[in-house]
Amino acid sequence: MKLVVKDMDISTGDVQVVILNDHDAAMFDLHSGDRILIQKGNRKTTAVLDIAESEKAVPPGFIGLFEEVLDALYAKHGDTVEIHLAKKPLSVGYIRKKLDGKELTYQELYEIVKDIGANKLTDVELSSFVTANYIAGMSDIEITHLTKAMALTGTQLKIAKKQVADIHSIGGVPGNRTTLIVVPILIAAGLTVPKTASRAITSPAGTADTMEVLAPVSLPISRLYQILDTVGGFIIWGGSVNLAPADDRIIKVEHPLSIDAEGQMLASIMAKKASVSATHLLMDIPVGKGTKVDDRKKAVHLQGHFERLGKVLGIKVCTMITEGSQPIGNGIGPVLEAIDCLRTLKNDSRAPQDLRQKSLEMAATMLEFIGKAKKGQGMVMATEILNNGKAYKTFVDIVRAQGGKDIDPSTLKPSKIEHVYEAPRAGRVQCLDNVSISRIARMAGAPRDQGAGIFLHKHCGDTVKKGEPIMTIYAASREKLNYALDLLKEIDGVVVR
Amino acid sequence: MKLVVKDMDISTGDVQVVILNDHDAAMFDLHSGDRILIQKGNRKTTAVLDIAESEKAVPPGFIGLFEEVLDALYAKHGDTVEIHLAKKPLSVGYIRKKLDGKELTYQELYEIVKDIGANKLTDVELSSFVTANYIAGMSDIEITHLTKAMALTGTQLKIAKKQVADIHSIGGVPGNRTTLIVVPILIAAGLTVPKTASRAITSPAGTADTMEVLAPVSLPISRLYQILDTVGGFIIWGGSVNLAPADDRIIKVEHPLSIDAEGQMLASIMAKKASVSATHLLMDIPVGKGTKVDDRKKAVHLQGHFERLGKVLGIKVCTMITEGSQPIGNGIGPVLEAIDCLRTLKNDSRAPQDLRQKSLEMAATMLEFIGKAKKGQGMVMATEILNNGKAYKTFVDIVRAQGGKDIDPSTLKPSKIEHVYEAPRAGRVQCLDNVSISRIARMAGAPRDQGAGIFLHKHCGDTVKKGEPIMTIYAASREKLNYALDLLKEIDGVVVR
Repeated sequence: MKLVVKDMDISTGDVQVVILNDHDAAMFDLHSGDRILIQKGNRKTTAVLDIAESEKAVPPGFIGLFEEVLDALYAKHGDTVEIHLAKKPLSVGYIRKKLDGKELTYQELYEIVKDIGANKLTDVELSSFVTANYIAGMSDIEITHLTKAMALTGTQLKIAKKQVADIHSIGGVPGNRTTLIVVPILIAAGLTVPKTASRAITSPAGTADTMEVLAPVSLPISRLYQILDTVGGFIIWGGSVNLAPADDRIIKVEHPLSIDAEGQMLASIMAKKASVSATHLLMDIPVGKGTKVDDRKKAVHLQGHFERLGKVLGIKVCTMITEGSQPIGNGIGPVLEAIDCLRTLKNDSRAPQDLRQKSLEMAATMLEFIGKAKKGQGMVMATEILNNGKAYKTFVDIVRAQGGKDIDPSTLKPSKIEHVYEAPRAGRVQCLDNVSISRIARMAGAPRDQGAGIFLHKHCGDTVKKGEPIMTIYAASREKLNYALDLLKEIDGVVVR
Repeated sequence: MKLVVKDMDISTGDVQVVILNDHDAAMFDLHSGDRILIQKGNRKTTAVLDIAESEKAVPPGFIGLFEEVLDALYAKHGDTVEIHLAKKPLSVGYIRKKLDGKELTYQELYEIVKDIGANKLTDVELSSFVTANYIAGMSDIEITHLTKAMALTGTQLKIAKKQVADIHSIGGVPGNRTTLIVVPILIAAGLTVPKTASRAITSPAGTADTMEVLAPVSLPISRLYQILDTVGGFIIWGGSVNLAPADDRIIKVEHPLSIDAEGQMLASIMAKKASVSATHLLMDIPVGKGTKVDDRKKAVHLQGHFERLGKVLGIKVCTMITEGSQPIGNGIGPVLEAIDCLRTLKNDSRAPQDLRQKSLEMAATMLEFIGKAKKGQGMVMATEILNNGKAYKTFVDIVRAQGGKDIDPSTLKPSKIEHVYEAPRAGRVQCLDNVSISRIARMAGAPRDQGAGIFLHKHCGDTVKKGEPIMTIYAASREKLNYALDLLKEIDGVVVR
């Protein structure tokens, strides 16, 4: 069937969409969600069909093309294209197989993950896949297959070393920016650490956002190999090198359903470790209200999964189950967290002790686990590297290698508009819950406004006098500060009793 | 947050959608799929958020509104609106509950069905619900709840009669237009029959499409009550009176997944019967390749479900499991089927005997089931009513009451462009499969072009001489005929051996 192109002047950002008038669709027995092959001259593309009931949107004889389709065909308004019904991707059949209770093979999961990453699946199909995995669960074998498929459909960093160290914290604890301290300690001890980090999704700062305050975090692959050779490691944004690209689309569907299918979460984390050739992984699982893991039993269950999955992938996994019921460090937000990390690396007296202690424990654990330190000697080694300035020097090397400027603490300033929240009465700070603190910092502008966020003067359990500062909120504008203050009032995030 | 309206000049046809630039969305911690309350003056509406990465689509400080949202707010390009995060509908929480393996209560299913019918749920949410029902199944109690909820969220026809008869055929058999013959026989026998029928979704004609050849099928409720009083029944399009409105949206999601969750199918059919106050239902389950029920075991399983569900709803259900492996009657397509029905009602010698026989059996079964005829006497009564012209006279009354013109068979003509498909060799017709015949008739233009379709000169098992006509294809244009012939060639729909 030949049709005239109507430029719909809209893009989905993901799946390619075309629109037919329902008269044309009915004649060709085409339905919403069908795949259509569109051809213009030698160029072809496959898109998902949506149907317009009104002739105003798309009249009979026309086909409405979204931006992605126009680009794929080099087509413009008024061009003539030819369409045919295309087969559904193989992956849709495999999703259907999962719905029917059958276990999926590696090849089948690979097809699904590849099509998710390439934006070939619709919301309906993707939601069905995620729902099926959530309800029916995934077998250990399927999780392994999914992990390998996720790794292989993205970029691979091939590091031909006997030992490659990696660390990971499961999210949900604001300020938990140990990576910027642990990685330089490990590299200074002689380890190779290709750390790929994430940006914030629901938090005020991801490790990549905080690192970006000091250095670029999007680098070409060739440069990463150079930095590994010269410095021994880096801290970059994983998204910039296209690691496990199916992940973002899956999260986009999980969010509205408020589900986090365990198999997918395991696969998503471990695929990224496999992608950078990690051989030894330290997994930090913070447990507490508002984190992803709210009780110890679930943490132990996950630990088993990570270790088993690691075994199949050839990654040795060591797990630390840590306290995660309140924020770690004093700063929340990219600049404020970077300041905490620099103070810790420089042994400044203002360094937050909880962040320093946790980072040292993590570094010590990895040093022993990978065999760099003898059993019981990790803490001594880590503390020495931090105290004697080697960790800081290594961090400066990393920053320079990634293209950052010389670090000048005097230029690292939080946003100018500030508000000090004071204790309404004398007593003990009862509650600084992770979710509320995150939301307030985001309202103030973090992570987009790098200087926005919160500085915590007090932590849970600290005693305060009436009028003593509990936290300072920093915002880039008066308006954003007001949003943050409204929220603070509304959610009653800090209780003093 | 205050934002300036951008008119996106696009409509979804269902869910209300707004678009924010990802900068604004990130600041307010808003994610794709979140609900946003938008307010302009006194007018408010809730829409689903989508996020634009490009500033071209929606710049920061702006909010892109789809047509449905502009209409709801009486808003136009350049207006200022205020937005707030809205809570997810309760129904989304209930879908989540189903995902977690819990049984849903009546109230919960009612909320879900109400929101589906009112287009409040996104594709992601709806797909998750349909998938969950498919994988986890629905308990008998849930199916009952769902049925009642579907009935109560749509129009109710309250008929205060002791006995109200209804008939239903499960789809998939082209030409199976028994309703136009059975309903007048039953009404002529003194029964009340408020028959609401569907339009074609994947077939060349639904009962409503065929009836529409002879009379309007969309009537106001008040007129339906009048016709019940004067004539005793009607044959209308159920969609016109908004019966069980959630159904269409559910089907739209099931189609791309190629699933047909049994509980939903049962509920959708029975809700429509409950909506018209049916007390006695005759259910025809055709079994055969290409129908919805491809083996007898499944038919018996469904029979049990319909009968149990009927009991709870106060509807007595009688099931006929019938032969459905090939088309019934000679005509396929609205006009061609209407001709078959009229010939049967008028005892014309050209009436297809298979259609006449099946219709008589259905009418006889209902007459005995409802107690109008004694056991064993139904066929005699039905045949007499058909043979003595009372059925035809009643049908004419129905057509007139619905606003149809006098029936003039000479004006009922199939489309002008025709092609006679002749037997390529002498032998026996092996295969006239339902799916192929349907697709060819649709390609020829049915049901949009009322006169388009197929006339079958032969059925499966008939012997033919070389060159003898097997079927005539009627199309409204040469182009559509060619589409149909291409398909006939491609799928090899008729085999003579």
